[in-house]
Amino acid sequence: MKGSIPTATVARLPLYLRCVSEVAPDQVTCSSEQLAESAGVNPAQVRKDLSYVDPPGVRGVGYDVAELRAVLRRELGLTREHRVAIAGAGNLGNALTMYPGFNESGFNVVALFDTDPTKIGTRIDSLTVEPYETIGTIVAARDVSIGVIATPVKAAQEVADRFVEAGVRSILNFAPAVLKRPAGVEVRRVDLSTELQILAYYEGRLGG
Amino acid sequence: MKGSIPTATVARLPLYLRCVSEVAPDQVTCSSEQLAESAGVNPAQVRKDLSYVDPPGVRGVGYDVAELRAVLRRELGLTREHRVAIAGAGNLGNALTMYPGFNESGFNVVALFDTDPTKIGTRIDSLTVEPYETIGTIVAARDVSIGVIATPVKAAQEVADRFVEAGVRSILNFAPAVLKRPAGVEVRRVDLSTELQILAYYEGRLGG
Repeated sequence: MKGSIPTATVARLPLYLRCVSEVAPDQVTCSSEQLAESAGVNPAQVRKDLSYVDPPGVRGVGYDVAELRAVLRRELGLTREHRVAIAGAGNLGNALTMYPGFNESGFNVVALFDTDPTKIGTRIDSLTVEPYETIGTIVAARDVSIGVIATPVKAAQEVADRFVEAGVRSILNFAPAVLKRPAGVEVRRVDLSTELQILAYYEGRLGG
Repeated sequence: MKGSIPTATVARLPLYLRCVSEVAPDQVTCSSEQLAESAGVNPAQVRKDLSYVDPPGVRGVGYDVAELRAVLRRELGLTREHRVAIAGAGNLGNALTMYPGFNESGFNVVALFDTDPTKIGTRIDSLTVEPYETIGTIVAARDVSIGVIATPVKAAQEVADRFVEAGVRSILNFAPAVLKRPAGVEVRRVDLSTELQILAYYEGRLGG
């Protein structure tokens, strides 16, 4: 149990990881300025954030790309596999099931659930859609640790309750609903319109 | 042309907006602590961020929910309609086309493009899938200001170039590709595995 890294710093670690994962193949070090830009903070904040995960940057040289990448992957727990279950086999759930970025980061989608009888039993990628009622048994049998909610709003709470009951402690919620959940369960909500709203701000300024 | 709000502050405005949009109907004011939690920053940062958009909070009382909501919507440019075109009519593109959160925020998806002959001409929601070659004419004719890229990696740059050539200045990129783009074009990239990585961090700490 470490748990001493501030929430906002944790949220930036994946952005730093993406930054060092995408530098040119011949770039050996990465400056705090470059990392700062990737996360929308200033270089002083980058140095502070990275002091929690420990690779000391060398003044005037920056961070070693390979070392920082390894440290961030370890810190984020990406060196081990995470099993993911997705509830909701609509377009969004199917898109997430087949999202190429998940596998690359060590996230393995092992179950897909829906309530629609015309979907249950059909195959998406290598998975068979299964009913919500089986969440409890399947989550346990397949050792799922992360539950993704891609259902309509009205089903989101039911599905969240089933995940939590089955022992899932990490939930990613795409439904525009605020979920009630017991202590000890981490819920993150993704609102796809957030990014469009940020663009809309700049669009106003560009006079577009 | 204002443009004086720091990038990181702009990125938090939609989170503050979501916070004041989701308070209980009888909650008239919102504390900087509550806003801080929604954006993963501290209350001092909230007060600094909101000083750019101008509604002064009253010490000890907080921000007026209705007023702050109106100010944030205006500042983000959500009081006018934004026309969105989506390239890529796979699961992700289709999910985005039908995403209920877009319409609520004033984003209107008016075109959907793909390169697959079996998809071109089919209907998704109220839209007909059209070929990439028509991006130029359709973007102009329908007054599109935001382009969304939901294509496979290999098509992302081509589609981005077509959007930019057609005059689109704001691009939201879901493809895991770094895009080359001319100055004056704002590109934001959404990586759906970022949120899972944050969950993976907490999962390691929860011992799950």
